[in-house]
Amino acid sequence: MLLCATMHYQRVGIGLLLWSVFFTLILAPTVDARIRHYKWEVKYEFKSPDCYKKLAITINGRTPGPTIQAQQGDTVIVELKNGLVTENVAIHWHGIRQIGTPWMDGTEGVTQCPILPGDTFIYKFVVDRPGTYLYHAHYGMQREAGLYGAIRVLVPDGVKEPFSYDYDRSIILNDWYHKSTFEQAAGLSSKSFVWVGEPQSLLIQGRGRFNCLASGLQADTCNSTNPECSPYFLTVVPGKTYRLRIGSLTSLSALNFAIEGHNLTVVEADGHYVEPFVVQNLNIYSGETYSVLVRTDQDPSRNYWAATNVISRNRTTPTGLAIFNYYPNHPRRSPRTAPPTGPQWNDSDYRLAQSVAIKARQGYIIPPPLTSDRVITLLNTQNRIDGYMRWSVNNVSFTLPHTPYLIALKKNMTHVFDQTPAPENYDSASYDIFSAPKNPEATYSNSIYRLKFNSTVDIILQNANSLMNNTSETHPWHLHGHDFWVLGYGKGKFDPVNDPKKYNLVNPIMKNTVPVHSYGWTALRFRADNPGIWAFHCHIESHFYMGMGVVFEEGVERVGELPSSIMGCGETKGVYRP
Amino acid sequence: MLLCATMHYQRVGIGLLLWSVFFTLILAPTVDARIRHYKWEVKYEFKSPDCYKKLAITINGRTPGPTIQAQQGDTVIVELKNGLVTENVAIHWHGIRQIGTPWMDGTEGVTQCPILPGDTFIYKFVVDRPGTYLYHAHYGMQREAGLYGAIRVLVPDGVKEPFSYDYDRSIILNDWYHKSTFEQAAGLSSKSFVWVGEPQSLLIQGRGRFNCLASGLQADTCNSTNPECSPYFLTVVPGKTYRLRIGSLTSLSALNFAIEGHNLTVVEADGHYVEPFVVQNLNIYSGETYSVLVRTDQDPSRNYWAATNVISRNRTTPTGLAIFNYYPNHPRRSPRTAPPTGPQWNDSDYRLAQSVAIKARQGYIIPPPLTSDRVITLLNTQNRIDGYMRWSVNNVSFTLPHTPYLIALKKNMTHVFDQTPAPENYDSASYDIFSAPKNPEATYSNSIYRLKFNSTVDIILQNANSLMNNTSETHPWHLHGHDFWVLGYGKGKFDPVNDPKKYNLVNPIMKNTVPVHSYGWTALRFRADNPGIWAFHCHIESHFYMGMGVVFEEGVERVGELPSSIMGCGETKGVYRP
Repeated sequence: MLLCATMHYQRVGIGLLLWSVFFTLILAPTVDARIRHYKWEVKYEFKSPDCYKKLAITINGRTPGPTIQAQQGDTVIVELKNGLVTENVAIHWHGIRQIGTPWMDGTEGVTQCPILPGDTFIYKFVVDRPGTYLYHAHYGMQREAGLYGAIRVLVPDGVKEPFSYDYDRSIILNDWYHKSTFEQAAGLSSKSFVWVGEPQSLLIQGRGRFNCLASGLQADTCNSTNPECSPYFLTVVPGKTYRLRIGSLTSLSALNFAIEGHNLTVVEADGHYVEPFVVQNLNIYSGETYSVLVRTDQDPSRNYWAATNVISRNRTTPTGLAIFNYYPNHPRRSPRTAPPTGPQWNDSDYRLAQSVAIKARQGYIIPPPLTSDRVITLLNTQNRIDGYMRWSVNNVSFTLPHTPYLIALKKNMTHVFDQTPAPENYDSASYDIFSAPKNPEATYSNSIYRLKFNSTVDIILQNANSLMNNTSETHPWHLHGHDFWVLGYGKGKFDPVNDPKKYNLVNPIMKNTVPVHSYGWTALRFRADNPGIWAFHCHIESHFYMGMGVVFEEGVERVGELPSSIMGCGETKGVYRP
Repeated sequence: MLLCATMHYQRVGIGLLLWSVFFTLILAPTVDARIRHYKWEVKYEFKSPDCYKKLAITINGRTPGPTIQAQQGDTVIVELKNGLVTENVAIHWHGIRQIGTPWMDGTEGVTQCPILPGDTFIYKFVVDRPGTYLYHAHYGMQREAGLYGAIRVLVPDGVKEPFSYDYDRSIILNDWYHKSTFEQAAGLSSKSFVWVGEPQSLLIQGRGRFNCLASGLQADTCNSTNPECSPYFLTVVPGKTYRLRIGSLTSLSALNFAIEGHNLTVVEADGHYVEPFVVQNLNIYSGETYSVLVRTDQDPSRNYWAATNVISRNRTTPTGLAIFNYYPNHPRRSPRTAPPTGPQWNDSDYRLAQSVAIKARQGYIIPPPLTSDRVITLLNTQNRIDGYMRWSVNNVSFTLPHTPYLIALKKNMTHVFDQTPAPENYDSASYDIFSAPKNPEATYSNSIYRLKFNSTVDIILQNANSLMNNTSETHPWHLHGHDFWVLGYGKGKFDPVNDPKKYNLVNPIMKNTVPVHSYGWTALRFRADNPGIWAFHCHIESHFYMGMGVVFEEGVERVGELPSSIMGCGETKGVYRP
């Protein structure tokens, strides 16, 4: 089994890869695979992560929730009790492919019905690959309310990773709003569109700092001395190497992360080993994870800032700060130096260059199929429908059906969603991606893409100008149930004749989340080899809420019997069986 | 059928009453009964009912929602679409007894599962008695979020009421908070108990006035010129008689209502005709309705204030104001006079006297059974359980089961709630109702009272001191599925030997909601003749949320087959039937 885990990265064929995963799963119980059992209760509690007190959705009283720690091949069981009063819930295990358990993906409306107040839903899945993953609510806009956390999957005992480090640490970056998610959602979905604006704070591992004094708010609402918002500190020993796992679950913001005076060596992205490269600071988009190695080789008599800054949008949110604390300095001693400010917010070349720099590590390359069976181009646009602000893909703004797709497709309920195939392309010959759309009207649909099982699919994400002139937002796209090869990035409109010739077919990184940069395109390839129904969407929560997503079906006929625990809504609602 | 409707009030026996209702239902379609069909969508919208902008739950964009208007014997159908994003919903038809349709009572956890987002639930019931009723959310604390409205049931064509009037008008009184119901609920159910305090405004027909200028809030949050918060006005013609139907759905406040310079003649309470009496102002408790006759006999050259003030709690909420507009004066012309201030907030004798004054109208008396089969005494106390603040009845703090009682009892699921009978009494010999409880600890339970079908049950509501010294709150108790006779009110501890001798068995009013006054008792009698499961609870929303309620079962074996639409939670969750 240890051999298999290693093979996983050294073998070159997808068939072998799948075979090795299968083999791993089969053998896992006989070697070292364990059950990692968690009991969580989800509740509203007043929290002051940035000193401003507001309601947050917590897990066992915490936001971020507990970190799931497991080893490759382990089975994770989360008994999730919904302790909210009137709200349902669902949790997605971000980056876990759910091979053989597509009903455990936790995507409300796609793979399951929401979990009712008082109900306990048992999530059970195998973490089949080592790496850094995330979990978060996938229902309405509950992620923004604080329902998220980290998953860390270690290699099996005895397996060596291709880099060494002394300590392993995790942080999650986030942005934080003072308005409730209800206020945000109501504003987004009203005709008199109200956007909540830029976040008030950036959080590092659930801690940020809002300027209470300047805000004029009373101490019972905003209190800078609240220990809940004292900066996060990471205590390090001089002369060591730290693996720092960094995930971003921002609602909106693309971020840059830096540790003052320390280089970061990028070694992992979304669970795949990266051909190491050194940066002064790391760009990270919502839904991405990275591991960086940090050598504590600086003057040990002081602390250093760890800082996160907004990129790709004009900055109005202050730098998020944590303390990189050299032992034995006091962890609360703030450096007297200025925190890192990262790159210029609008330096898109810098961001593009870092995206392109991420390649699979030699010896761990999983070569992509050299050709694809189908190319789906997805134009990203902001639109209006009947006066409502929406985001769309190929002029279709996505809506979730009332009965989750997985159940509908497995049970042949063809009436619960639009059976028309979703559009493969847009009018690329005439569409001007550099201007606000001439006709910003789009249509609603819950139609999907049905993929031939085991076929190879290329996705071209094509960015464009939003409704506002001279604006093209960066969208981080996240694919459920798969990793994809990142074949290339480009500026402007994708050229279907010439651009594919420049694809990196040698050592492309595999990821589950990837940005499409402003006015640019990103080309992805994946194998439709995981029976199930999988969402693919912009990870900016408000964008998905406003329709920026699609759904893929593949091999649904191979999906085993669905557990009744995922049912209970739409066409599967409340039929009592004595 | 018209004859029957009249008989309804003149006959003396319950058997005959039931028979006449039955007869009415049977005959209704052949005479004049109609279907009153409503299509509602429930959504969050930003509203400024008191000039402060906050999220409210609206029906078809409005709060209060549309008034249901029907005639006795009509069938009301409400197709309720839940348009909330992540929240379920349920609506109770307050004062409608649901004879033969106990599953349509809309009480989440008692008679139905909550309605999921995207679902449409069809409420269908007969309004079998003329009168003034209400509807409101009965799930979590959603009523406070604005989900409420009025039901007006008219007598059949040709039937004369025992008083005459020229015009028929309705208003609902409410109190209004600026905090969200989520914040309120989280504060109430946290160990570090946080109470939201007194309401910011009193609303008359959904309109109040918060002092934006004094609050220092910005105009996008609080704007006194917003037309949504211009005072409600009731335009009247001089020299006429108005029937004004007044309901209260306050979250917390007991209210007094007055129209400057005009007497109010009370003629109806909770759908029953009152032996008319004249007041300068009317006390009204949450869940109560009254009809008063108002003669427009004052100087017609000006307008008058209609005003509502808090009673029974020390006033910190400003008077709620509307304009009683004599045509053709401009409806927005504020009177220059001072608005009515009502009685002293702590004049409990005044409140008790008005409660006692409410008797059934001669000719419409439904005499109560002269004896009862069972007496249940309910001590009302504030308690702590494991450090949590709670309200209790006989030291038991009520919790709702995960599967609604109606389904559990009908399907013999004895494991879903505590089968121990709920306590019939408290330690009345030794308990000091005038002091804070010596041992404030209570216990949680979801146990219920099972009543012999067709038996006569007396309820003695016994008030007591809360946890704070020298404080005993007024609790308005609302019974679902029935009207009860109000046999008497008293001060201090109920004397089971002598107080029953003073019961009014001659002309007691029937009601569905009644206050138990501070440090006092209220005695009720009802016939357990409506097969179903019925909540009886304090109508202060936070008190019920914190456990101040009980549940009665009667004749569940006579309940017909339950519609599957009420299922879908707890033990009835999500079993798919192809």
